[in-house]
Amino acid sequence: MPDASPGFSLAEIAQRLGGEVVGDGAVRIREIATLAQAGPEALSFLTNPKYRAQLATTKAAAVIVGPRDRDATGLPRIVVANPYAYLARALALFNPPPALAPGIHSSAVVEDGAQVDASAAIGPLTHVARGARIGARCRIGAGCHVGEGVVLGEDCVLHAGVTIYHGCILGRRVIVHAGAVIGADGFGFAPEDGHWVKIPQIGRVVIGDDVEIGANTTIDRGALDDTVIEEGVKLDNLIQIAHNVRIGAHTVMAACVGVAGSTTIGRHCMVGGAAGIIGHLTIADNVTIAVGSFVTKSITEPGSTYTGVWSAQPHREWMRMQARLRQVEEMAQRIRALEQRIQELERKQP
Amino acid sequence: MPDASPGFSLAEIAQRLGGEVVGDGAVRIREIATLAQAGPEALSFLTNPKYRAQLATTKAAAVIVGPRDRDATGLPRIVVANPYAYLARALALFNPPPALAPGIHSSAVVEDGAQVDASAAIGPLTHVARGARIGARCRIGAGCHVGEGVVLGEDCVLHAGVTIYHGCILGRRVIVHAGAVIGADGFGFAPEDGHWVKIPQIGRVVIGDDVEIGANTTIDRGALDDTVIEEGVKLDNLIQIAHNVRIGAHTVMAACVGVAGSTTIGRHCMVGGAAGIIGHLTIADNVTIAVGSFVTKSITEPGSTYTGVWSAQPHREWMRMQARLRQVEEMAQRIRALEQRIQELERKQP
Amino acid sequence: MPDASPGFSLAEIAQRLGGEVVGDGAVRIREIATLAQAGPEALSFLTNPKYRAQLATTKAAAVIVGPRDRDATGLPRIVVANPYAYLARALALFNPPPALAPGIHSSAVVEDGAQVDASAAIGPLTHVARGARIGARCRIGAGCHVGEGVVLGEDCVLHAGVTIYHGCILGRRVIVHAGAVIGADGFGFAPEDGHWVKIPQIGRVVIGDDVEIGANTTIDRGALDDTVIEEGVKLDNLIQIAHNVRIGAHTVMAACVGVAGSTTIGRHCMVGGAAGIIGHLTIADNVTIAVGSFVTKSITEPGSTYTGVWSAQPHREWMRMQARLRQVEEMAQRIRALEQRIQELERKQP
Repeated sequence: MPDASPGFSLAEIAQRLGGEVVGDGAVRIREIATLAQAGPEALSFLTNPKYRAQLATTKAAAVIVGPRDRDATGLPRIVVANPYAYLARALALFNPPPALAPGIHSSAVVEDGAQVDASAAIGPLTHVARGARIGARCRIGAGCHVGEGVVLGEDCVLHAGVTIYHGCILGRRVIVHAGAVIGADGFGFAPEDGHWVKIPQIGRVVIGDDVEIGANTTIDRGALDDTVIEEGVKLDNLIQIAHNVRIGAHTVMAACVGVAGSTTIGRHCMVGGAAGIIGHLTIADNVTIAVGSFVTKSITEPGSTYTGVWSAQPHREWMRMQARLRQVEEMAQRIRALEQRIQELERKQP
Repeated sequence: MPDASPGFSLAEIAQRLGGEVVGDGAVRIREIATLAQAGPEALSFLTNPKYRAQLATTKAAAVIVGPRDRDATGLPRIVVANPYAYLARALALFNPPPALAPGIHSSAVVEDGAQVDASAAIGPLTHVARGARIGARCRIGAGCHVGEGVVLGEDCVLHAGVTIYHGCILGRRVIVHAGAVIGADGFGFAPEDGHWVKIPQIGRVVIGDDVEIGANTTIDRGALDDTVIEEGVKLDNLIQIAHNVRIGAHTVMAACVGVAGSTTIGRHCMVGGAAGIIGHLTIADNVTIAVGSFVTKSITEPGSTYTGVWSAQPHREWMRMQARLRQVEEMAQRIRALEQRIQELERKQP
Repeated sequence: MPDASPGFSLAEIAQRLGGEVVGDGAVRIREIATLAQAGPEALSFLTNPKYRAQLATTKAAAVIVGPRDRDATGLPRIVVANPYAYLARALALFNPPPALAPGIHSSAVVEDGAQVDASAAIGPLTHVARGARIGARCRIGAGCHVGEGVVLGEDCVLHAGVTIYHGCILGRRVIVHAGAVIGADGFGFAPEDGHWVKIPQIGRVVIGDDVEIGANTTIDRGALDDTVIEEGVKLDNLIQIAHNVRIGAHTVMAACVGVAGSTTIGRHCMVGGAAGIIGHLTIADNVTIAVGSFVTKSITEPGSTYTGVWSAQPHREWMRMQARLRQVEEMAQRIRALEQRIQELERKQP
């Protein structure tokens, strides 16, 4: 990605983001790139030790390294405790979000009684219903729907085509990606005479500060109480969060995860992609759930790791493994028969 | 959820929704809440026997109970055969859908030749293509697309950002949640010379009365014939229904289910979240498919329950279980060897 | 699906699409239908040998057959090497896409500095940001968002409600179905002091010619480098493609597949529905991954087939199978005991 900006000197970067400059702080940086792809105006980084050898061959102007790699290169460098987090900040410095002029686009529909902070930007063809409150510096993209009475804290970003149903509450600095749906009805029906009676879903979705929600992810409103996403939670794309779920602060979930109704997930958990968690469970803090695993019981031990996925194998091996399992019952019978025969022999033994 | 309405007396509720009032029918109700959370103006409910003890401690003004619990409390109460379905109706009474004034919002685009009933409401920034017919009292949210020739029966609700492709037919009282896509092309390609030739999908999606479709769910149009969702079906969020599937009346599917092409599912089935059903199968009526299960063969026995999910376990146990399975083949060999040795011993036996 | 067009004679069809006419080329065709459902003005087809017997009973006016079935019917027929691909083309002939008049709908918002070819059609309530370039004959549906600097090659089709984030590049003849999101941020966060720091995602999504992308599918932009979908790839609905994935030409994926970050998939692969592929893997060319399988290791052998799904079984059988697996460890102990006892017996043997 070429970057037309004048860039920064290495010293200027450290001035803004911290870190100790070792070597020539005047070297000019115009972009950020991997060690392998960096050119002579790029700042690179060593965040994964397996690339350390590339320090010797990179064409980068400078690198971000951790304290352990302070002397691993002669290039100008910024030494920091957490090079990965530093990289994140450096990328943000070189790639500021597109400036969206504050104000309401002429094609947007903002209903009477909606409050939009003067510093917020409402994109084209977006609808903000009455009673909604849009905080300072929010940026709402094109084609969104912000329902009646929705509250967005300061500095929220809604990308294009986001729907937020009536009454939902977002904290500050919440980022919602395109196509996400927040606050649709939870899935609740009472059986009666062979058909289903809809149970109105009158709770809300309440989202804390610094949450990020991926594209086409859905978070249902609560049935009676609220669905709650605590601060700092990061949800990837195409995730389903059912009604009355609570997700603890700073938990992350990779794409395609499903969490069924009324489950409570702890803080600082990590849920791998395509994992499933059934309803009415409690998951402790700091739990890791491996990709593709299906959690069917509460996990009470904080910090534990749960797994449940079978790895795909060459088709013939997979079939053989399944056949083995079918053998087990027959094997158990043969063992029983052997035990009887040997007992008989032992009995006859002199 | 506070409710500003004047509310109803218990007797008024029973007058509207049925049920027998036992105790003081004049008690005023302003909201509905669980036994644990109910305040002195709340109507609560006992729909799950495990909460029966809470009848003694609840602060509710009154409760909904079944015939068996008629005398389980001294609180004013409504006694009904099906308290859960009654709760659904009471919630609807206290939480009527937001009144949407009939008419076409000034920012909506309704093409010439579309017929919109005068009692229907077309939301802001929504597009209704030519030839579409919108029935009485339909409520179409913001930012929807109703394609050419689409028919919506009476009292349908499309939430924001719904897309209905050309030619699809919805019955009466169909609810479609935000981001759902009805009638996109089925996935059909003919291989030719190392690439794929698209097979035009010329069927439709035909949806019966009283169907509800969740947020970001996709239902593909048929290839030659139609994809059919019969009356009373309830689909949760992020479900994929492929071309030429037929889902029988009153079947429910939890979120993240996928059904592949040309499969026919019976009536009154229940499909758990994240289950998968491959193509060209037939599933009988009243079948239950457990969460996360993968159905690869037709299910011919009505009322049967199918399961296929492994529960996640602590990582070490899961690894040991997988190792055990690899042992099975070796164990079979050891059993064979034991059988030969014991046969030899028995032969030598006097 | 009735077709009001005057239709074509069989000979006219062959003139346009190729193939050899056998029998009366003057027979008039107004629609295309299966052998079972065809009426006297329908062209039918035999693409699956299991329907060959229907050739004798169909009411079709004519049929498409392969060379092997040249003499399997007395009906007028078109004989072609690949009847399935021919069917695709015949369907396209009889069902041309809805004519969308070129031009920008009056309700669309096209920013200054966007270039829209005069032959392209921009649908109602669609937003095209500055710097976007829309190629000749593109058809963009209602309610789309085409971000800043996006490039669409010639003859692309975006259905309603598609979002393409800034900077993404689409080749020619790309079809994107409703609700798909291309170019949302990849899921990247650096841990720091118990919270997550967002890593700006500055790569793009680059899509080759003749790609089709299903409804509500999400393809994330790259972190530093691009996410790449090569020419001819077909992705079904509700698929998740993470940042920096590369999918080789002409690979197809059925619905609900998830591919985690930085994985490279070969050309001409086939991935079954709901399969998952974890990150940082390499999958060879021509690999088949069965439905519901979870790939956790690179697949190096081209043309191989991988499987990993357990079929759902009647609940009791599934439970028994799981119980058997738990027995295996105990069985291993019993075998060990038997081996010792028999050794003892053998030792004592005269």
